Amino acid sequence: MSEALASVDSAGNVTLPERTIPPPRSISAEARRYLSTPFPISEEWPTDPRATAAWKRQIAAVDAGFLAQQEPMLRMLPARVERQTMNGVPVYVGTPTGAHARERAALYLHGGGMIVFGGELVRVQAATSALQLDCRSYAVDYRMPPDHPYPAALDDCLAVYRRIIETHAPSELVVAGSSAGGNLAAALALRARDEGLPAPAALLLLTPEVDLTESGDTFQTNAGIDIVLKQGLMSLNLLYAGGHDLSHPYLSPLFGDFTRGFPPTLIQAGTRDLFLSNAVRMHRALRRCGLEAELHVFEAMPHGGFGGSAPEDAELRAELTRFMNKHCGTEHRSSRG
Amino acid sequence: MSEALASVDSAGNVTLPERTIPPPRSISAEARRYLSTPFPISEEWPTDPRATAAWKRQIAAVDAGFLAQQEPMLRMLPARVERQTMNGVPVYVGTPTGAHARERAALYLHGGGMIVFGGELVRVQAATSALQLDCRSYAVDYRMPPDHPYPAALDDCLAVYRRIIETHAPSELVVAGSSAGGNLAAALALRARDEGLPAPAALLLLTPEVDLTESGDTFQTNAGIDIVLKQGLMSLNLLYAGGHDLSHPYLSPLFGDFTRGFPPTLIQAGTRDLFLSNAVRMHRALRRCGLEAELHVFEAMPHGGFGGSAPEDAELRAELTRFMNKHCGTEHRSSRG
Repeated sequence: MSEALASVDSAGNVTLPERTIPPPRSISAEARRYLSTPFPISEEWPTDPRATAAWKRQIAAVDAGFLAQQEPMLRMLPARVERQTMNGVPVYVGTPTGAHARERAALYLHGGGMIVFGGELVRVQAATSALQLDCRSYAVDYRMPPDHPYPAALDDCLAVYRRIIETHAPSELVVAGSSAGGNLAAALALRARDEGLPAPAALLLLTPEVDLTESGDTFQTNAGIDIVLKQGLMSLNLLYAGGHDLSHPYLSPLFGDFTRGFPPTLIQAGTRDLFLSNAVRMHRALRRCGLEAELHVFEAMPHGGFGGSAPEDAELRAELTRFMNKHCGTEHRSSRG
Repeated sequence: MSEALASVDSAGNVTLPERTIPPPRSISAEARRYLSTPFPISEEWPTDPRATAAWKRQIAAVDAGFLAQQEPMLRMLPARVERQTMNGVPVYVGTPTGAHARERAALYLHGGGMIVFGGELVRVQAATSALQLDCRSYAVDYRMPPDHPYPAALDDCLAVYRRIIETHAPSELVVAGSSAGGNLAAALALRARDEGLPAPAALLLLTPEVDLTESGDTFQTNAGIDIVLKQGLMSLNLLYAGGHDLSHPYLSPLFGDFTRGFPPTLIQAGTRDLFLSNAVRMHRALRRCGLEAELHVFEAMPHGGFGGSAPEDAELRAELTRFMNKHCGTEHRSSRG
């Protein structure tokens, strides 16, 4: 960059020369290692929403790859997982085996661009989210495209939320999600409010896909710099929307009304994250309405963290636990644990 | 970006093709206008720290340009400014004329890469900071290179701090600074603590230059994307350090010890900010020590904001006022106002 300079035209277009960005020296060795490891997800998604068979093939291939990688790990995690059906929706309930029992619980909505990481992969996420959040975690295996576009996924999450608040005080329940799961978590909070349901105690939105229109600036500035999400996911978003307006608040909760009934929210992203704009814009939207909202941005972190075992990932877990401690009702040891 | 893809090698180097980043559509019209206006500061600084005459010429030219632009505005601002000498250091004291008098006050440390925006330009910043922070603002005209390298500036800021806390309760005093001023504000808090002085009620660090070693990742990723600070300021940092270790906590407060005696801190940056890494790393350093620290990152904002009159700038001012209201002692109307 020091020789070939950037230029800005009078319309505000910034032209940058070809350049090589060295690995950051400001992060842990584990995080640096993660940034030099190719992320094992294909981005060769079909472009035609109607190419159902092609979508299914690609989804199955991605899921099989992740399952092969993650299933061996599942057996070693100090959590047990049960599959239940709640209001007709399959849910994997993860419980940390080592931790003391808590009243509080999490409704966990998995990521995966609204199309992958369902089924048996939710079993893994029930365990990891229970450990990450240090409490029982209800991980919803919500329906997804191509067979089930919007609003199937959100309907399922809401059905499970309705069921959980019959037995858990909302003041003891957090709703959490990463990436597409952050979209569903925020959309659920809006829709629950609109339908007259009580709000959960808190929302945890991890590098959340809150804007399916992809209007944020880091969709441009961090394209290619984020080694996990190298570019936007518009073809997936259109498949998910199934003809619905991408900018509707239930599809892009960033554009929701936060003036009433929205819970305290923690939002996380990384400086190399394609969804950094999603995160900071969501934070500002909540803060403009005077809501309690915390922003945590991690140095050089791509979409989704540094793989889970870097010190930075542990730091994030500590922030999540603290935020839950602050916002969930007084803790008791529970005989139901 | 969609055709020519980025690539990552096994060492973690990311190579990006030449590309044009369009103006963001996710910000206000005023902010968009600011991003298409060339920033009027030369970056042709001398590279040799010993080229004293060349440095002085360039500094004088930059200051004259800004003064010509800003002085007419000063007369229209609803604030009065007096020049005082406090413990031997010139200070411009700005007071909002419209606002009700408050006990609380701000020690304001101006930016300018540790070399520019001193002298009469501090008069302007006394007025603007008094209005931005809605209280009396003591803006220090600290000594600067090439004649006065480190630790002259920090010595001056500390001398003024010592004087102010003779008449203002530290619980009613915030220390604020933007860019290089954020460096001095954080370094002052560390050094005041080390010298046994009471901490101020709060720190406000706006897009702060807390790492003169420039080790953060956004010094690379946002180079050229930030239209204000197009690249790092290492030649200025070396001139300021005058042979001292750039990584010493009084020069790069990011590397300080925050385990005791550091005040609640608000940190701000933008997603296009060259100093975004400075901001998020400082936030994490404080949070790791359990300190109360808030991070506010603004969409597509370059170093230093959107020029002051965009809605986003007003939003930041509202956050600063709220943070001060939270952390400064109970407000009284004061007969000294």
